[in-house]
This record gives sequence, C-alpha cells and structure tokens, in this order.
Amino acid sequence: MAEFSIIETYFNRQPHAVDVGIGDDSAVIQPPSQQQLVICTDTLISGRHFPTDTAAHAVGWKSVAVNLSDIAAMAATPHSILLALSLPSIDHAWLQGFSDGLYACCEHYGVSLIGGDTTQSPHLTISVTALGWVAPQTAVTRSNAQVGDLIVVSGTVGDAAFALQHLGDPLQQRLDYPTPRCVLGQQLNGLAHSMIDISDGLAQDLQHILTASHCGACIELSQLPLSTRVQALPLVEQWQYALTGGDDYELCFTLSKENYQKLLQRHPDVQTTVIGQIIAQPQLQFMYQGQAQSLKLNGYQHFASE
Amino acid sequence: MAEFSIIETYFNRQPHAVDVGIGDDSAVIQPPSQQQLVICTDTLISGRHFPTDTAAHAVGWKSVAVNLSDIAAMAATPHSILLALSLPSIDHAWLQGFSDGLYACCEHYGVSLIGGDTTQSPHLTISVTALGWVAPQTAVTRSNAQVGDLIVVSGTVGDAAFALQHLGDPLQQRLDYPTPRCVLGQQLNGLAHSMIDISDGLAQDLQHILTASHCGACIELSQLPLSTRVQALPLVEQWQYALTGGDDYELCFTLSKENYQKLLQRHPDVQTTVIGQIIAQPQLQFMYQGQAQSLKLNGYQHFASE
Repeated sequence: MAEFSIIETYFNRQPHAVDVGIGDDSAVIQPPSQQQLVICTDTLISGRHFPTDTAAHAVGWKSVAVNLSDIAAMAATPHSILLALSLPSIDHAWLQGFSDGLYACCEHYGVSLIGGDTTQSPHLTISVTALGWVAPQTAVTRSNAQVGDLIVVSGTVGDAAFALQHLGDPLQQRLDYPTPRCVLGQQLNGLAHSMIDISDGLAQDLQHILTASHCGACIELSQLPLSTRVQALPLVEQWQYALTGGDDYELCFTLSKENYQKLLQRHPDVQTTVIGQIIAQPQLQFMYQGQAQSLKLNGYQHFASE
Repeated sequence: MAEFSIIETYFNRQPHAVDVGIGDDSAVIQPPSQQQLVICTDTLISGRHFPTDTAAHAVGWKSVAVNLSDIAAMAATPHSILLALSLPSIDHAWLQGFSDGLYACCEHYGVSLIGGDTTQSPHLTISVTALGWVAPQTAVTRSNAQVGDLIVVSGTVGDAAFALQHLGDPLQQRLDYPTPRCVLGQQLNGLAHSMIDISDGLAQDLQHILTASHCGACIELSQLPLSTRVQALPLVEQWQYALTGGDDYELCFTLSKENYQKLLQRHPDVQTTVIGQIIAQPQLQFMYQGQAQSLKLNGYQHFASE
C-alpha cells in the first residue's frame, strides 16, 4: 500500500470550509473577514509523549487535542489541522483506530483535517499543525499578566501524571483523552490578561507567564484543584502531581477580579479555580494555609538530562 | 539543555510580519487583505529523505525548500514556516548547521520561522509546515488541466536521483540544496491551468494531474530537460532518472499555448521546457522522436514494498 492509498483510505473524510483540501500540493482556506490567523505545531513521539501500548484511538485523539489546547490558550477559535504522520509500517488496525480517534477529536471540537503528509520512519512520530482565528489584537499571550491579577486554572491538575504512574486507574482517561478547553479559551477572549496551556506542569508553565510578563506569583497550595484520587495522597505528593505533572492540557490564565466576576456571570458553569495572585516580585511563591512553603520543583523538560 | 534553551539558542531570530511569534502557545498573523491562506506540511526522515551523513546545513535548507515547493506549486507567495524538530540528542554543531541552513533558505525566499516544537526522539525527524498567500480563486490545483494544454517543466529533472547514485558528484548540490521555484510559481498565477511540484518523479507526479483532471498526456522523451551529466547516460537511464527520480522540486504545469507565450514575453529568462501535451485519453503516453515508446515506470512510493 502506498502513501496515497493510506491517505485515501484513512484520512480522506470531507473537510468543511476549505477551498482546496486533501489531495493537492497545499490546502487553500478563505480567512474569515477581520480575523487573525493563529497557528501552532506540536509533536507526539511514541514512548515519550504516550506509552508505546497506548490505544491507537487515544493517540489519534491526543495528537489533535494537544494542539487545540495551544489554540485555546490564545483565546482563539480552532478551525483546522494538518497531520504529519511518520510510522514504521502499515498496520491497518492501528491506522483505523488512529484515524477514528483523530476524527473523533476533530468532530468534537468542530475542526477539519485539511492536509498532511504520511511517511515511513523507524519510530512512530506524529506532528500536528493546528489553525484558528481570533479578532485582531485580542489573542491572549503569556506576556501581559498584571500585578494584582487572579491566577486561575481550569479543571483539575495532576491527573495525567497520576495516571501515568497508575496505568489502568480510571484517571487514565485524562491521560489518554485530554480535553482542550476550547470553549473556555474563547470565553476568556477580552477578559484574560495572559494565558498558557498546562502541558509541562503547572509550575513550569506558569513560570513562562511570569518570565514573559516580568512579574511573580503567589500560589495558595490548598486551592489547587485536584481529583478525588489525587486528594487521597499525602500533601507533598498531591503538590508534586499538581505542580509538576505534565499532560494536563488545562488552561492557566490571569485576569482582574472584575473580569473574573464577568466570566462567572456570563458562564456560571465554568469549572475554574482561583489558585493565587500575580505579584510584582519576580518569584514563584507557595503558601499553604497562609504559611510560606519552600518547594523544589521540576516540570517536564525534553532533553532535561543532558 | 532543555527544549526552551534549544529554541532560544538556535531558533529565535526575529520573524517579520507576525503579531505574535516564537515563544508563545501559538503564532498570530494578520492575513493580507483579499488573500487566501495556502498551507502544507512535509516531513523529512533521516536515512529516507536524505542520506544519514548529509550535512546539517543541507538538511536545514532542504526541510524548508521542499515545503516552499508545495506553496509554489499552488502559484502562491510563501510567507512563513513552523518547524517540528525531533532529534535523538543535543548535538550543538549539528543544531548550529541545521538552523543556519534553515534560516538561509528562509532568507533566500523571504519567509520567517514563526513557531515550532522541539522534542527528543530515537530518530531524526523534521516536519515543516509552510504558509503562503494567494488571491482568491487563483490558486492553481492539480485538477484543471485542459485537453490541448502544453505540459511544461522548470529546470532539469533527474539530477537529485542521479546524485543519490553518485554521491560526491557536482549534482549533489541539486540533491542537498533543492531550489523551490517560488518566483516561477507566482509568475504562473493566472496563466497555468494545473500544476504540481515534482517530488516523487515526473511521471508519477504528472499522473496526479492527469488523474485529478480526468485526462491523459503525451510526452516527447527527446524534450526532457536534462543536465549535461545525465545526458551522457544511455537513453533508457536518462529517461529513468528524468521520469522516476525523486527530489527534483521542479514545477510541472499545464497551460494553453497562448498563456505560455505570455509567460515567455513577460519573463524571457524563465527556464522552462515544453515536454508534451494534454490529451483526452486518460493515459500517460511516451514518444521518442515521433515513435511511441512503451516504458515501465515506478515513481518513488513510501511503503511501496508492502
């Protein structure tokens, strides 16, 4: 089976809203009027970003989800993806599961697969590029956190890292099927001052906001939103999972108290938790029930051992 | 050294024409007014798309060039790229050479690196996504070839395949540093009926036009544009390289005689060669000095052995 047949068989569902889709040298899209293009790319390597025995369906879902999370973190509306799939051999059951999972995530979030490339490689590698749209000058970056801003996270943090250590646990759903916060991201357009998605651990990703915004943060550890299963652990383990666990794909954002009230009024159902506040001193400080805590933390780092 | 340091050290040159560039969750771009977005992605695998001992600088150049070639094949103007780089370890000399080559190609063609992802992987894998712009409804696809169209190719074909068999030959420059025909692609906007870039061999890529356009082609083998070194080979070998050799990154396009005259009048310096004509019968026919030739050809196919 040739590359063309793989695309024809598994990746040829009709995309919406493209002038030219899969099967030409490039895809062609009409930008909506008065919108800026938001674009990102993220790679999943088998054995590094997911256990090698992860179900193909989950790998397909996740490869889309992690990219939509980056679009959401800009407060943009996702539109479409391109897939660069490098795989060791033709495994039809795997390709069926992978493509089903990929399309399931696409359909759930209203995006289309509009192009890609399939190649043979010794190691399973999936790079997805995601596109979205945002009104001019409204994209929320990492660099505009303001002193006094509330620091807020969506959902619960640390679940995926817990699941990675406890394969078979019900929380494995959170590891295998991350849920990019696409709706919340768009709700925060015009409200959030800064935002990032949590992929390498809350502490490390929040630090990117602090560095880019030239400020610090004070986090109240008792406020970290945790799943019941993580809450059952000793405190220090809870914090370790919540602050350094990768693969959450929740949003961490900062905004004024007034804007947070607006968010809650407009969308009473949002699942968000205030975990601290932006401060002027360029440090990441931790408190527990009012007491300063000294924590040594390391988020996930590619190549960190080198 | 962490992922962030690699990006900071090697991939942080200032992009032009972006609202948000490298260092945030996504890049943000203002589309030019009245333009459609053209986007593609192509992957290079070490040992498959380039010999493992290829100079890092050439790998960097080529990973951009093959993608710009896909933008050119739509008659679009290239704008920017994203890089998904997966590499086994931190090799500073390699990274310096690779990033220098990548930026050299970017600068030559006036595009910016605006985002990406760097990960550790057992196998060197480079996926680039390229973006360009084109006036509405003017993108040239594979599916609009007209009976009677001239079939034209740019440059010379078969050089890269020849070089792959003769490493160290002067033609290796054509293998290592392909030259996407970005200027010609734009000159063909409004003139060409159909177009493709030649990456898997002229015969196979032309066949994509024929299939998409529901027509056939008659090729005059004596007209194939060949380098002096390929011309020195026996005829059948010449044809083999020219028709089935991959990695040319030349353009193959079809257009009316009138439009080809317009192209030559507007741009007398274009290096293009008429090699045949579009016919109604859905076949790819070969002639040599007026005599029909029966050739068995196979272009490059990923997974073709399976």
